Amino acid sequence: MTNKITIHLAMLAFLVTMPVFASKVSIPTPRKNEPIQPIPLGVEAHTAKVELGKMLFFDPRLSKSGFISCNSCHNLATGGSDNLPTSIGHKWQLGPINSPTVLNARFNLAQFWDGRAKDLKEQAGGPIENPKEMASNHELTDEVLSSISQYVELFRDIYGDDDIDIEEIKDAIAAFEDTLITPNSRFDLWLKGHDEALTAKELEGYQLFKNKGCVGCHNGVAVGGNSFQKLGIVKPYPNDKILGRFNVTGKESDKMVFKVPTLRNIELTAPYFHDARTWDLAEAVKLMGEYELGQDISDEEADKIVAFLKTLTGEQPRIVYPVLPPSTAATPKPDRS
Amino acid sequence: MTNKITIHLAMLAFLVTMPVFASKVSIPTPRKNEPIQPIPLGVEAHTAKVELGKMLFFDPRLSKSGFISCNSCHNLATGGSDNLPTSIGHKWQLGPINSPTVLNARFNLAQFWDGRAKDLKEQAGGPIENPKEMASNHELTDEVLSSISQYVELFRDIYGDDDIDIEEIKDAIAAFEDTLITPNSRFDLWLKGHDEALTAKELEGYQLFKNKGCVGCHNGVAVGGNSFQKLGIVKPYPNDKILGRFNVTGKESDKMVFKVPTLRNIELTAPYFHDARTWDLAEAVKLMGEYELGQDISDEEADKIVAFLKTLTGEQPRIVYPVLPPSTAATPKPDRS
Repeated sequence: MTNKITIHLAMLAFLVTMPVFASKVSIPTPRKNEPIQPIPLGVEAHTAKVELGKMLFFDPRLSKSGFISCNSCHNLATGGSDNLPTSIGHKWQLGPINSPTVLNARFNLAQFWDGRAKDLKEQAGGPIENPKEMASNHELTDEVLSSISQYVELFRDIYGDDDIDIEEIKDAIAAFEDTLITPNSRFDLWLKGHDEALTAKELEGYQLFKNKGCVGCHNGVAVGGNSFQKLGIVKPYPNDKILGRFNVTGKESDKMVFKVPTLRNIELTAPYFHDARTWDLAEAVKLMGEYELGQDISDEEADKIVAFLKTLTGEQPRIVYPVLPPSTAATPKPDRS
Repeated sequence: MTNKITIHLAMLAFLVTMPVFASKVSIPTPRKNEPIQPIPLGVEAHTAKVELGKMLFFDPRLSKSGFISCNSCHNLATGGSDNLPTSIGHKWQLGPINSPTVLNARFNLAQFWDGRAKDLKEQAGGPIENPKEMASNHELTDEVLSSISQYVELFRDIYGDDDIDIEEIKDAIAAFEDTLITPNSRFDLWLKGHDEALTAKELEGYQLFKNKGCVGCHNGVAVGGNSFQKLGIVKPYPNDKILGRFNVTGKESDKMVFKVPTLRNIELTAPYFHDARTWDLAEAVKLMGEYELGQDISDEEADKIVAFLKTLTGEQPRIVYPVLPPSTAATPKPDRS
């Protein structure tokens, strides 16, 4: 009898307090009608391939000199980019164009500023054999990696053959890069319905970003990366030396057309534009207004838009720095010349 | 009564089987009289300072170009060294001497090949301002870091002032480097009494290493690093362009005298010698016999000694790659020229 009463009292207490709890744990309502979507929390991945790709991404032996790795110009400590106007390559040659971030690159419709690589795998081979970048060649990288027994084993376990080739190298690097996403930015939390994730100023910035028209090109999961657009559409861009998509298609109308860069983690990846025209994000916003939108964006507006843009910085990938297998007597020696 | 009998039987069973268990869990007897001692499993560390030091170690903004970090030449993916004859520095200048490993450097009696820095802290300032290496200067690095609010906070929390200076920068880098030890090599397990950790061939190699006299200089925790010795003591070394310790002391007798390098993780840190004379560890062993010991070491003997040397590869430090705070408008821009 005593037990029964206790149970009844407990049930009563539960029924009385439940609405209180329910109001406290109310589920946020995602904002589904925004032009920007949150980055997924994770991606499907082939773990062993990703680990191999990480090793390759950090391995300087993919360069002729043995000094430059993918990470040299797409540094995962600094937003997946190198924070230089243009990258430093073999023999300190300066590249022609600002290095785009590798973070969230999986969401791009194509790779490179001019989109000349259809995906990350196709992209990965480019810098390795570019004489101004890593200055190696695909035969040499195959030979280097094939001389290192631990690599041979890892490739065999994944690709099922004894022959390391550039297609496999690119595939593994791309598999690693595919995992380099930055979820849980404050803006994404807001998109998921957490109202408190943004300040009033940041929200105003977002409204300006939409109202001024920035969002016309910078939208989707990556806030960009999903279309090609002409730089200087309302006013000719002062630097027309780099022709962009024209180099791929040969079409006159593709001159000065570039892949719209992602704005995710934009505060980490100065300087801005393909020609690194400015280090200042507010100035970048105003220049975009001038050349792309025909809008005069005031200092105060730019300040608010920048406040919004900084909410796009997400959790950076947690990378355990790889330990690379040593070279052997058969490994071609690095060549610094 | 039944209970009591059960207990007595259980005790009896325990007493009978105890010696069997005891023989199975016998504690290995450490080998205390060997000239090499195991690397400790851990070191005392100021966690926040180590974390800051790690960030600085990987931060390319400590170089003039914004491209070169401590890790560029002391790469923790490749044995704490760069696997190049000499390092590549600012504007692709080639350094004068092979980059020594940062792993286990805490056990060295002094730093650099010529021992010109008394400890890791003193060493850390050198490459930053060396015009052939990172090509920055200590005023510039102070200015760069002071412009980055997250760094200012981290330094304030640790050093208690608002002023970032080079002494603090060096101190933090050294604190990180102090933790870069590689315990639990197979040789250390053997030293701790685990007989099965080495093969017969490796043990023979170790006996040769002792009997030939290698151990006379390569001893202690780091298997080297604890004395200065003349290179070419029994036969003049063919390359006498780098004078070593003479540059520090000015003493004639210190010409061609160098800090004995550690042999820990030696399989990871080719090429060998201060002038990178060989990439082949067996050849390095034979050259040492020739110039230091006046001993003709046969191919077979060198092969065994190399087998022993490879047991000195320990667990590499597990590094979570740092995420660096972004530069600000006040941060001096990188200068690639």
